[in-house]
Amino acid sequence: MQQTIQVDTRFLGQAIAQEMESIRPEIWDAWVKLREKTCVGAEWTGWVNFPEKHGFAILEQVKKERLAERLPYDCVVVVGIGGSYAGTKAMMDALSHSYSAFLPGRDPKVPIFYAGHQMSELQLMELVDVLEQRDPLVVAISKSGTTTEPAVAFRVIRKNLERKYGQQAAQRIIAITDPAGGALRRFATEQKYQTFSVPNDVGGRFSVLTAVGIVPLALAGYPVADMLHGAQDLYNEISAKTTPDHAVITYAAARLAAYQSGKKIEALAYAQPKLMGLIEWWKQLFGESEGKQHKGLFPVGLAYTTDLHSMGQYMQDGERHLLETFLSFENPTISLGDTIERRLRIPSGSNIDELGYLEQRFVEDINRAAMLGTKLAHFDGGVPCLEIKCNRLDAYTMGALFAFFQVACGIGAAVLGVNPYDQPGVESYKKNLFGLLGKPGFESLGQELKKRLTQT
Amino acid sequence: MQQTIQVDTRFLGQAIAQEMESIRPEIWDAWVKLREKTCVGAEWTGWVNFPEKHGFAILEQVKKERLAERLPYDCVVVVGIGGSYAGTKAMMDALSHSYSAFLPGRDPKVPIFYAGHQMSELQLMELVDVLEQRDPLVVAISKSGTTTEPAVAFRVIRKNLERKYGQQAAQRIIAITDPAGGALRRFATEQKYQTFSVPNDVGGRFSVLTAVGIVPLALAGYPVADMLHGAQDLYNEISAKTTPDHAVITYAAARLAAYQSGKKIEALAYAQPKLMGLIEWWKQLFGESEGKQHKGLFPVGLAYTTDLHSMGQYMQDGERHLLETFLSFENPTISLGDTIERRLRIPSGSNIDELGYLEQRFVEDINRAAMLGTKLAHFDGGVPCLEIKCNRLDAYTMGALFAFFQVACGIGAAVLGVNPYDQPGVESYKKNLFGLLGKPGFESLGQELKKRLTQT
Repeated sequence: MQQTIQVDTRFLGQAIAQEMESIRPEIWDAWVKLREKTCVGAEWTGWVNFPEKHGFAILEQVKKERLAERLPYDCVVVVGIGGSYAGTKAMMDALSHSYSAFLPGRDPKVPIFYAGHQMSELQLMELVDVLEQRDPLVVAISKSGTTTEPAVAFRVIRKNLERKYGQQAAQRIIAITDPAGGALRRFATEQKYQTFSVPNDVGGRFSVLTAVGIVPLALAGYPVADMLHGAQDLYNEISAKTTPDHAVITYAAARLAAYQSGKKIEALAYAQPKLMGLIEWWKQLFGESEGKQHKGLFPVGLAYTTDLHSMGQYMQDGERHLLETFLSFENPTISLGDTIERRLRIPSGSNIDELGYLEQRFVEDINRAAMLGTKLAHFDGGVPCLEIKCNRLDAYTMGALFAFFQVACGIGAAVLGVNPYDQPGVESYKKNLFGLLGKPGFESLGQELKKRLTQT
Repeated sequence: MQQTIQVDTRFLGQAIAQEMESIRPEIWDAWVKLREKTCVGAEWTGWVNFPEKHGFAILEQVKKERLAERLPYDCVVVVGIGGSYAGTKAMMDALSHSYSAFLPGRDPKVPIFYAGHQMSELQLMELVDVLEQRDPLVVAISKSGTTTEPAVAFRVIRKNLERKYGQQAAQRIIAITDPAGGALRRFATEQKYQTFSVPNDVGGRFSVLTAVGIVPLALAGYPVADMLHGAQDLYNEISAKTTPDHAVITYAAARLAAYQSGKKIEALAYAQPKLMGLIEWWKQLFGESEGKQHKGLFPVGLAYTTDLHSMGQYMQDGERHLLETFLSFENPTISLGDTIERRLRIPSGSNIDELGYLEQRFVEDINRAAMLGTKLAHFDGGVPCLEIKCNRLDAYTMGALFAFFQVACGIGAAVLGVNPYDQPGVESYKKNLFGLLGKPGFESLGQELKKRLTQT
């Protein structure tokens, strides 16, 4: 049976390909340990097989509650930062009409807005401008409920709801949080919000296939079951393997081989603008899991062919510290919401633009040729190139990609020698933030920091 | 007089700060050569002082033609790739209401759509879906008129206009192209399009302050004069200098010092989501100008505080090959289109979320504290940090930033030892693309490439 996702390593270069083969057994061993929960950070590996264990049941629960029928709403607001929103946004970007905001009624799904994922006062005010004119359902996602960005946004949005809906405001709020404790759980109990749980054994950046992604996506009308099937099929595929030749093993081994050969950046190149959210999700997954102990490939995204006219020159001729991974799709042309495939051919016309040789060919043929031509050009320029090949750009494949990258990240980081599931470095800026803002308990740190900032 | 833009180097670290001072005279010398047009690539330096020399006159011409009154339109479509659209998008992102698509009528400016900046068939079809329901003004921007992406999109959009408006379609098209020759110029003459020129002595990525940016932005209702004044004031400021202490000299020297000290990536961190387009423009400017001869800092953007929950861990603890530049604004809270400043304070409420100590403070205070706290945290983690400080987030400052980065890029690349104005590496993928698509003259290359792609 053909694998859902395939990896092509033919343009990795001989040295890195050899290194990849020598690392492969170790990567396979890391997968066995992950599966058996004997790896470092085993208490955070609840994401493996989560769809089968709990995911489909959560989706059934959302449907059973029939929120959509109880309460009219015309948008979903996700309040959360990092892994609490990145997976949902990846799905939204991938599966929405690119201009749905300009075509009301065209897409049966409702818009999803995001809050608490940054701290710009202006953007938060502008979000309130929109919410004033709408009837939102608010999904607040935070394990603790005290992370500054979402906590601030949640206060602002709650106040807005209370002014509009009075006593009924609480019915428009759903909390996804710690199963037992924490500020948001306590608050939800007090306010009688409907709640779902962030599993105790799944960290934020590995949580898209839990209630964290399932609930807002289902409420907004996305094909969540397809996403869960895609992910579970990928888990099943690798679980069925008895030899280390699954694509996910190959990807993890290849990128680690590139790193151990001195490469410093992994550029994930994609030719479908709708994948931007997925690439942001991928950057968090790998950057936060691997960037420790002064180690790790720095993950960046390249939106082709746009970025061929931006970063293309650097990729071809700049510093040779790059690994380039191409994410490609055999059939990327079906817009969700359309029942039939639409296609666009290059129109005939005057040949002044020298496009005569392309007339009546599909636009996507050029897009594909650009990706392949770029891979060869960059390889010839000294960049090791990988290709991750998928079939359709749909919810099923998105689910498979989530699972694929999560497994690759977990096992790759383990062999790199870091714990993929912690993020000790994120605390440093938070402590400084508390100090500068004068949070009780951080006063002396605050004084010290202010002194440093005013010194010349 | 205080400079429009200031650079703080206090957290660069001693070694790089010393290196910066030793490079400063060379950078200053590069500025003198740029001003006197005796630098490498002098024939491409027409962008210096362009607003004063031609920019304001072009803006007057756009106003005089009164296109807006002759022909009703409700959107502008920019057809172009790379420097032909990146500056316009930077201005649009910075100066629009974040949710203007959801608030029709709120912003007096008309939406700008982009085409020909990528090759996704699906996205181009979806753009046509929107244009079907609108009356667009199309601005086709290409020096040659034969660049594949915009040429394909222009064919598709032209056909759409001709079907809707028949003989009148040509009145809806404006071409910005080579002053004399090239495919788009010939076609525009034949079809009697209104035209503007891409100056002969300005390359794409340095062209935002020429007709390339002025025309579409003015047609869409942006405060273009302010942008030009901001840029020209910056040019005047540095031109008036007789000693090498202008902020632009400091920035160019600091980043080159970091590179020469072994840093490989410059991460430009910003806390205003509206700056995303500017950061993409900046990436093209530096990536394409410096990424040659296996040299150059790899430019990446970090959208804070969002990316503190994504790449923050890596910035704090990952590989130490990073320079981090913070782009900050003293007054980022005024939304264009609003006549008065609106502010948002953190509402009072239950202290379960532990935000009690922040009640009634401005949201932006937290955003600013997060940037400062992060700078100190990352510096303490071993990352040299720069800060570029601006006053208001408005058209004037955007113009100043365009000029600031263009000068810094031109003089920095010269000292790095590369020609900032060419892009030889971009040709490699284009040749491969032509080969794979079977363009006449590229048949044998195409055969060779196809053979390589099918080998196992």
